[in-house]
Amino acid sequence: MRIRRKPWAENEFNTNKNYIQNPYDLKGKWKTFFNNSNPIHIEIGCGKGQFITTMSKLNPDINYIAIERQSMVIVSALKNGREKNVGKNLAFFTADVENLRNFFEPSEIERIYINFCDPWPNKKKWAKRRLTHRNFLKIYSDIFGENGELFFKTDSRILFEFSLNEFESQENWKMKNICLDLHNSEFEGNIMTEYEEKFSSKGMPIFRLEANFNKNI
Amino acid sequence: MRIRRKPWAENEFNTNKNYIQNPYDLKGKWKTFFNNSNPIHIEIGCGKGQFITTMSKLNPDINYIAIERQSMVIVSALKNGREKNVGKNLAFFTADVENLRNFFEPSEIERIYINFCDPWPNKKKWAKRRLTHRNFLKIYSDIFGENGELFFKTDSRILFEFSLNEFESQENWKMKNICLDLHNSEFEGNIMTEYEEKFSSKGMPIFRLEANFNKNI
Repeated sequence: MRIRRKPWAENEFNTNKNYIQNPYDLKGKWKTFFNNSNPIHIEIGCGKGQFITTMSKLNPDINYIAIERQSMVIVSALKNGREKNVGKNLAFFTADVENLRNFFEPSEIERIYINFCDPWPNKKKWAKRRLTHRNFLKIYSDIFGENGELFFKTDSRILFEFSLNEFESQENWKMKNICLDLHNSEFEGNIMTEYEEKFSSKGMPIFRLEANFNKNI
Repeated sequence: MRIRRKPWAENEFNTNKNYIQNPYDLKGKWKTFFNNSNPIHIEIGCGKGQFITTMSKLNPDINYIAIERQSMVIVSALKNGREKNVGKNLAFFTADVENLRNFFEPSEIERIYINFCDPWPNKKKWAKRRLTHRNFLKIYSDIFGENGELFFKTDSRILFEFSLNEFESQENWKMKNICLDLHNSEFEGNIMTEYEEKFSSKGMPIFRLEANFNKNI
């Protein structure tokens, strides 16, 4: 999508207490940053932040880090979080997923959320850009270190099919709770993203899975 | 479905050369029966036989065994096969899947096809009747012995979701080529069943997966 420049963005970035200017400095120091030893969960591609903001308020004993590539998108998440008065257990920073290893030591985080990422649906040569491509799974597993879990949702049948096959092709990943129609399932406690509200209100099925990484399988 | 009695059935059962009256006698002796050492593939629930009949004609170097629980259904498959002049590489018998171990020694068969079996969609207590329930996977793996593969197709989203989770929950099964919309995929050489023609012509997606069993994973 085309992203409009927001004149208020610079001020939001400079003053929002939940925004991290230089996440490189915090590699290996996230527990110190949050000032506790609670589990850390991250969302890759937080968009406008509805999901992660809601999660952080529902679960004060978990620390959340919301990562988004587009500064003019994450700034909306910052504003959204500030207006909802989110706590200190939520941090935002701008980054590309390719650089994830630069921000986290192995075993620093326990869970990754990926919600409604770009499906890159039509072009076979673009499969490598999908966030569940085996190259990205390798990045996630490097960050997990010994073990961790990834929670994934999408409305794209093509991306979900691809993801099932990618996880299944990898030795150290094991899926569970695979769901082909989340909103007509028995799954409880689902927190919707902005996209999810839009797509599911049109009756489109939402796909979801959990995948556990275990280095010692 | 209600199955009409067919007055010509008895004659078909008695005279059809591809029908096996007493499959218990052939346990451990299938290669002798087929008079060669070609691989043996079976279909569980062959219905009216379009799939297995076509396969047997396309692949003369594979031996096929079509199994169906309902005698008034398999008799249509027998008639269908006879009219299409199927060869000696196709055998039919009537049996329940629960009894499969009584007909095959471990390692006698290499592949199982399950196409459009009853999804038992609504009742949770009926999950055990689904042919991809872990109890059935155990029967299949006992027959495979060391290793084997299962090819599965369905039009039921509920059954497919259940099946993904069942296979994934089992240590010795590994899925591949998972497909959430077979007729809009790049899969080549698909042979349709009677049900598949009906459902896919209505635009309903067909789900498919392959699952490898390996005792020594």
